[in-house]
Amino acid sequence: MELAVLNENLLPLTEVPLDKMDRGLFFGDGVYEVLRSYHGRIFALEEHLSRFERSAAEIQLGGFDIAQIRSRILEAFEKAGFRTAKIYFHLTRGCELREHLPGPNLKPSFFLTVQELHDDPKKKQHGIRVCTHPDLRWKRCDIKSLNLLPNVLARIEADRKGCTEALLVNDKGLITEGAGSAFFAVNGKEKTLYTHPLGPEILPSITRAVVLRIARDVGLTPVEQAVTPQQAAQMDELFLAVTTKDILPITQFDGNPVGTGRPGPCTAALLKQFQEYVAACAQRP
Amino acid sequence: MELAVLNENLLPLTEVPLDKMDRGLFFGDGVYEVLRSYHGRIFALEEHLSRFERSAAEIQLGGFDIAQIRSRILEAFEKAGFRTAKIYFHLTRGCELREHLPGPNLKPSFFLTVQELHDDPKKKQHGIRVCTHPDLRWKRCDIKSLNLLPNVLARIEADRKGCTEALLVNDKGLITEGAGSAFFAVNGKEKTLYTHPLGPEILPSITRAVVLRIARDVGLTPVEQAVTPQQAAQMDELFLAVTTKDILPITQFDGNPVGTGRPGPCTAALLKQFQEYVAACAQRP
Repeated sequence: MELAVLNENLLPLTEVPLDKMDRGLFFGDGVYEVLRSYHGRIFALEEHLSRFERSAAEIQLGGFDIAQIRSRILEAFEKAGFRTAKIYFHLTRGCELREHLPGPNLKPSFFLTVQELHDDPKKKQHGIRVCTHPDLRWKRCDIKSLNLLPNVLARIEADRKGCTEALLVNDKGLITEGAGSAFFAVNGKEKTLYTHPLGPEILPSITRAVVLRIARDVGLTPVEQAVTPQQAAQMDELFLAVTTKDILPITQFDGNPVGTGRPGPCTAALLKQFQEYVAACAQRP
Repeated sequence: MELAVLNENLLPLTEVPLDKMDRGLFFGDGVYEVLRSYHGRIFALEEHLSRFERSAAEIQLGGFDIAQIRSRILEAFEKAGFRTAKIYFHLTRGCELREHLPGPNLKPSFFLTVQELHDDPKKKQHGIRVCTHPDLRWKRCDIKSLNLLPNVLARIEADRKGCTEALLVNDKGLITEGAGSAFFAVNGKEKTLYTHPLGPEILPSITRAVVLRIARDVGLTPVEQAVTPQQAAQMDELFLAVTTKDILPITQFDGNPVGTGRPGPCTAALLKQFQEYVAACAQRP
């Protein structure tokens, strides 16, 4: 008889709940998004939904209704009642006995959580420490998939070194992005803002796009060009951009202070501009 | 209130079963093995357990007892009662609210299935079709992790082309291995057997190791050296090696016949030798 073991329990395979055989678990065969709200409104919902649809299309995951996903997000957000919320959701290709090639009758599995988001003013005020780590990820980092083990391993290593984030360095010796964030470098004299160009090597981060959009408002010229760790170490300011934390100044890079060792004026100006931008978005009808 | 949505159902986050928040699902943060039996005995159990321990160590996944895992495998196999069984198991880092950095109190999650394995004599007799596909995987393919989306995507594409397996070609233009199998090429004149050397680019396949061990018994000199698709297309014989199907002749490669277009004599000799080898192993006390 076909059997299964769930932790300590031996049981007939026919009695295993179907959701224990999620292709998301067996293969990471699914895609996800993380959203947040500001001032009681979900920020950039349509941008996140578009990116999600693109990720799903890139892995040939269909059989879902984006309008239904939008409704689920909005309903859960409204019922949760947090002004500042973090929303995570994923969709996997569905559940079935494990085979690499997906079966014909799969129904995608949806999972979502809404939690209150607590900003960390200390990190914004004092900045964070980061370290570099080899970028071991696959060649389609533009797809926001559930294959995140290299990101987890980089984060574990960063934490071991007392750092909040790992900056990933690819085979060409260039910083692509953080294990869970976009990366920016400011040349204060030139008033330029560097970040890795879009492409298969990085996630098309929505916060990254907003930062690039508002950069000129604070007198910075965006340059979509990657930097090496050596170049980054010489920059006046470094920061991360990520949905749940928006802009986070980096004050220590591989053990050395960044610029003055304190969050710099360009990062502060961008953060202020960013906060005004999201406040204005929240006011829109 | 913190909320969750499980498919259609909205519920308080506190009511979500913990196992829906498996790091294996969120991140593919786990490792796995696939074993099989021949003649009522599990083949190469200790080799699989050693590889599993190595995979777990490489992702810093601890908190499990390998003796307990061995017992669970043996007990499930014996109770299932199949002479020819396929055993899959995985261990994830455990279940918790989603954060890249693992929490301190995680308990690994174990899952195992035993199913009857049905050999496909037609595929052995007539061979299979394969096609090449870019190797998009991460840089640690020696770790048997749950991050398998690139393998799944390659297999979907192969199936679309009427092929059973995709052979992955890396940036150097070399075939690393199949999406779920090791790859071998035979030069019939030279009596050499080519396969990609061990390293981070391929899984240390146990069937691959057995094939290399028995190659000289059938007059073939093993050469651990990768070949290009162009070189593979000129070889006399090609085959795959994989636990669940042992040796599978390839008779069509990217749309063209391999050698005579029928399984060749070296592959047949290796398969016979392999079957004798596993039969002898099953006889051991």
